[in-house]
Amino acid sequence: MSQLRDHLSQRALGVKQSAVRDVFDIAMDPNLVSLAGGNPWLDDLPLTELSQTAADLVAKHGTESLQYGTGQGTDEMRAAACTVMAADGIPDADPEHVVITPGSQAAIDTACRAFANPGDVVVVEDPTFVGALTTFTTWELDAVATGTDDQGLVPEQLDETLTRLKDEGRRVAFLYTIPSFANPSGALLPTSRRDEVAAICQKHGVLIVEDNPYGQIAFDGNPVEPIAARHRDNVVYLGTMSKIFSPGVRIGWALVPAALKREFYLSAESAFIHASTYSQMLSTSFVNDFDWTGHVAHVTQLYRERANTLVGAIREHWDPAVEFIDPRGGFFLWATLPEGVDTLEMMAEGIKAGAVFVPGAAFTPVEGTHSTLRLAYSFVSAEKLTEGVRRLAPVVNEAVARTR
Amino acid sequence: MSQLRDHLSQRALGVKQSAVRDVFDIAMDPNLVSLAGGNPWLDDLPLTELSQTAADLVAKHGTESLQYGTGQGTDEMRAAACTVMAADGIPDADPEHVVITPGSQAAIDTACRAFANPGDVVVVEDPTFVGALTTFTTWELDAVATGTDDQGLVPEQLDETLTRLKDEGRRVAFLYTIPSFANPSGALLPTSRRDEVAAICQKHGVLIVEDNPYGQIAFDGNPVEPIAARHRDNVVYLGTMSKIFSPGVRIGWALVPAALKREFYLSAESAFIHASTYSQMLSTSFVNDFDWTGHVAHVTQLYRERANTLVGAIREHWDPAVEFIDPRGGFFLWATLPEGVDTLEMMAEGIKAGAVFVPGAAFTPVEGTHSTLRLAYSFVSAEKLTEGVRRLAPVVNEAVARTR
Repeated sequence: MSQLRDHLSQRALGVKQSAVRDVFDIAMDPNLVSLAGGNPWLDDLPLTELSQTAADLVAKHGTESLQYGTGQGTDEMRAAACTVMAADGIPDADPEHVVITPGSQAAIDTACRAFANPGDVVVVEDPTFVGALTTFTTWELDAVATGTDDQGLVPEQLDETLTRLKDEGRRVAFLYTIPSFANPSGALLPTSRRDEVAAICQKHGVLIVEDNPYGQIAFDGNPVEPIAARHRDNVVYLGTMSKIFSPGVRIGWALVPAALKREFYLSAESAFIHASTYSQMLSTSFVNDFDWTGHVAHVTQLYRERANTLVGAIREHWDPAVEFIDPRGGFFLWATLPEGVDTLEMMAEGIKAGAVFVPGAAFTPVEGTHSTLRLAYSFVSAEKLTEGVRRLAPVVNEAVARTR
Repeated sequence: MSQLRDHLSQRALGVKQSAVRDVFDIAMDPNLVSLAGGNPWLDDLPLTELSQTAADLVAKHGTESLQYGTGQGTDEMRAAACTVMAADGIPDADPEHVVITPGSQAAIDTACRAFANPGDVVVVEDPTFVGALTTFTTWELDAVATGTDDQGLVPEQLDETLTRLKDEGRRVAFLYTIPSFANPSGALLPTSRRDEVAAICQKHGVLIVEDNPYGQIAFDGNPVEPIAARHRDNVVYLGTMSKIFSPGVRIGWALVPAALKREFYLSAESAFIHASTYSQMLSTSFVNDFDWTGHVAHVTQLYRERANTLVGAIREHWDPAVEFIDPRGGFFLWATLPEGVDTLEMMAEGIKAGAVFVPGAAFTPVEGTHSTLRLAYSFVSAEKLTEGVRRLAPVVNEAVARTR
């Protein structure tokens, strides 16, 4: 046994079963109200019509849809990705610069493979996506946090962070950022800051990996123009079908600057050859043959109502000392309790009380205790949202009280 | 531009667009007879019945099949993988030890992530799968070739290779081997050698990654027991739906020793979260609801006829100085021309003559010229196979003549 474990790589030994993963396992308990998982709402997809497409893809196109495809992705899927990106706010993406991946986690992984050497730094907003942090660990990268407020990245702090890293002689592989309705914070980076962030990264010669799964889930119906829209040459832009259609098909993509595309594509191919041909064809059909923007508008409205319910319940049941970012889009509400509360500990009490959230420790590379937590409203009915907040209220309010 | 390219990692700069990839691009020309690509034959799948399954998966199970799944793979797909492995010759695989991946390339990649540190050695049979070589490059591993003959790995040479590497103080991450109807050689490692290989690796404390996509494509109907069947504790065994069902769904898996499973699974999750839920459910249905062994038997017979046609055409049209391994299963025929022939150069002449093969240089980490080539018969009609060999005959025969 111990000899067998000598086979493990340093990076494998370094990957921890994350707190969020533990939570997801626990959250399967049907007696709990889970505010943990950020699943999209799929019940309102046009499943009957889509099932006809799914059938045709096998009956009429099976020898294509079930066969090997090309490494960069089908022409049709890359064009469909450009259609989706146009709705994101990038009207002129070139399919030649798109690489299709089996979900955008694989695109994050490919970015590490293509741009990062072991020991490099990846600068991340704090808090950031837990899945990205895990990937950075497996590539033996140091995730260095840079400060955020309720509008996301703080440009001055980013400039300081990059200056400090340069002074320390560190190679920064890239800035990883989710500017629109971020996971986990829900924060929306204003346009002016986007330009500042781009200029700062340009000044420091640092590449930006812009991850935008939630950009179209804008409650006011107006996605904010991505950084890549105006600063294409220095941005690798990641998109996905997961939140606007289906995460189960595992289709994401990267829009890569021309000078870097070939290596990005070969790096991707070395990891998985190509994304499922069938999934690409089903996703292409969803974009080309269905009212996909109508579906996005519909679920966005649903998410907005759920976010409003959640905010209302928090205001009613939780101590007003709990601060939170009022969601303007996306799937998540980020709450900050008074300093001194350890939400990782609090999670166990929450589970005893019958509801589960993800503690903030999951979303930061910074060690120590954290008084933050994430609530996901995307997949939870209004009734359950209220019930979850109600169940957590004594746990939250007592934790707050103990800090006084 | 040059500044942008500074963003590339060392490994990305090291990944070459492979000769085989160039060939695949060229091979798309419909005027060429392509003996390059190892696609499975899908026309005889029960596409009409499968299309009903595909439809039901959306219409009746869409909120599950299109949703996020668990990182290790669905219970049902892991059980189906065990059913397939039982037919491979591993009757007692435990679904708990199976990790589903988006194709087995991703499983090879995960093995590197979980078991290899940068600078480690991976020992490979020579020749070996080009896709694995590319993956090893991206993980900054040294692929060290160990000798083979027409029955695959030569145990004595493996022992010498491992002894030498130990003397040199190198860490060997694992032996990567395709013992049954290997890509590209088609060689079948006899059972006695399998035990020897296992014993040698055990002696040296070296893990085995056994890749077995072709094991069931045995022309005599009797797959040879995998190394993992009798030496489970020291073998990570890779299986796939690609050759027995569909490569387009991108479903592969690893059967991992219990002591290593957790890290393997977390490494996989960090790369792609999970394989397509829909693809897993479609593949599960193929195994559970269809006569999948009947399909495998049918296509195996087809591949056997094609291999026979190819062998017959070579014997008729090519100089007898061309040696080759008579395929007993799988998709490929491996030919060796007299020393001094450079098949990479010859490829261009072959294309002018109207047919394309993959030169041996693609399949080896050993630099220099190679007189070997791979012909794929799996996807080519008997007529085209004969025509391809006939077109290549003057090119091959002149190259042989020049060595005299």
